[in-house]
Amino acid sequence: MSAGDPPGELRVIPVTGLPEVTRGTDLAGLVCDAVELHDGDVVVVTQKVVSKAEGAVEAVDPDDPLSHKVIVERESVRILRRRGELIISETRHGFVCANAGVDLSNVEAGTAALLPEDSDRSARRIRDGIRGRAGVRVGVIVSDTFGRPWRRGVTDVAIGAAGVQVVLDLRGTTDAYGRELAVTEVALVDEIAAAAELVMGKSTGVPVAVVRGLDPAVLVDGPASVRDDLLRPGADDLFR
Amino acid sequence: MSAGDPPGELRVIPVTGLPEVTRGTDLAGLVCDAVELHDGDVVVVTQKVVSKAEGAVEAVDPDDPLSHKVIVERESVRILRRRGELIISETRHGFVCANAGVDLSNVEAGTAALLPEDSDRSARRIRDGIRGRAGVRVGVIVSDTFGRPWRRGVTDVAIGAAGVQVVLDLRGTTDAYGRELAVTEVALVDEIAAAAELVMGKSTGVPVAVVRGLDPAVLVDGPASVRDDLLRPGADDLFR
Repeated sequence: MSAGDPPGELRVIPVTGLPEVTRGTDLAGLVCDAVELHDGDVVVVTQKVVSKAEGAVEAVDPDDPLSHKVIVERESVRILRRRGELIISETRHGFVCANAGVDLSNVEAGTAALLPEDSDRSARRIRDGIRGRAGVRVGVIVSDTFGRPWRRGVTDVAIGAAGVQVVLDLRGTTDAYGRELAVTEVALVDEIAAAAELVMGKSTGVPVAVVRGLDPAVLVDGPASVRDDLLRPGADDLFR
Repeated sequence: MSAGDPPGELRVIPVTGLPEVTRGTDLAGLVCDAVELHDGDVVVVTQKVVSKAEGAVEAVDPDDPLSHKVIVERESVRILRRRGELIISETRHGFVCANAGVDLSNVEAGTAALLPEDSDRSARRIRDGIRGRAGVRVGVIVSDTFGRPWRRGVTDVAIGAAGVQVVLDLRGTTDAYGRELAVTEVALVDEIAAAAELVMGKSTGVPVAVVRGLDPAVLVDGPASVRDDLLRPGADDLFR
């Protein structure tokens, strides 16, 4: 995972039994009440509960399965593809995903959850809240479920991060044969989000997981940002 | 992760201290000698050692950093994008990736590793070998490191699988509010490959990891195939 010593074992721990999250819920407090965190843990929180806690939820017509499409259009700055009801767009935050991240699952009937206004800031708030409350230095990732071209199915990826290196830059490191590595940037937070999804599931109501045992060097105190560091600028992108 | 009971904790275990892999190496034997496997484990093996063991390695001019491009062109059935030295193509196996999966890292100078001829078959051989040798029922994933549009950095994904559900089909399952899930297919093997990469690293020489604690229901005895079940057919793909 990092360029140094062989890594040790990793644990991916579901945080179960959390109460219902509503507007104003203190997510940091919720997590600290539910699980004993250690320095170096990375806490992965799904977008859905972050959006609910932040009130990023809007009313839709429960009898019209397409009524949220108005919100999708509004949240998009650029439509990349349309097919039937599916819209792949770039959101105003810069994410390229289906339906601008607006979705109807795991929210009350008649409502749609939007992406958080600034999911890096959401992650920072939770990180700072955990530090203040439990006195531990953790990383926080806000995760969401995105599709991708060329491969079927969805995986969880990071849409916000705090306290953890977003991308591992391996430039200058060498492989086992001493050759400089060609692949120089690993999307660390996306791999952590994917690992966390394995214990979360889509229907089991586990919106938080803890990843324990990462190289302590991936924890950072300085700024971390999915939007700045992980989203590929349009001009660099061969598929936009 | 599955649609049933809340999942338990997952462990991601690096398999360290493996000897050098060369043409003809029995990977199943190597893994069984290095780690005690349990029923239900998923063993993730990187493409590089699979290709080496299968002899999917070709000579290139060590003084010409572009000499492997001839192999890249030959392994490609369709070029999607070119920029400078970078080629994004569809390989003859159906993968869309950079440089047709041909790469020069973690192989001897003067050689390039190609993708395995049939990475699902590679996974099956290792799975069967482990079953024969250790008597345990495991899943096997062959992983590789791919980039993706829109987001910087690479993540590990599955290019072959045996004994494990490739895609979790959640159709007919409901969310915590009883609403039928809109996102119905989770690319399980890609998430497992990403989790495994977190303990492997690119330069630490850990080519195998074990993921322990997955829902036993994701292990399957019947056929599993990344190429058949996870690769999106060109006609379905909005970005090809």
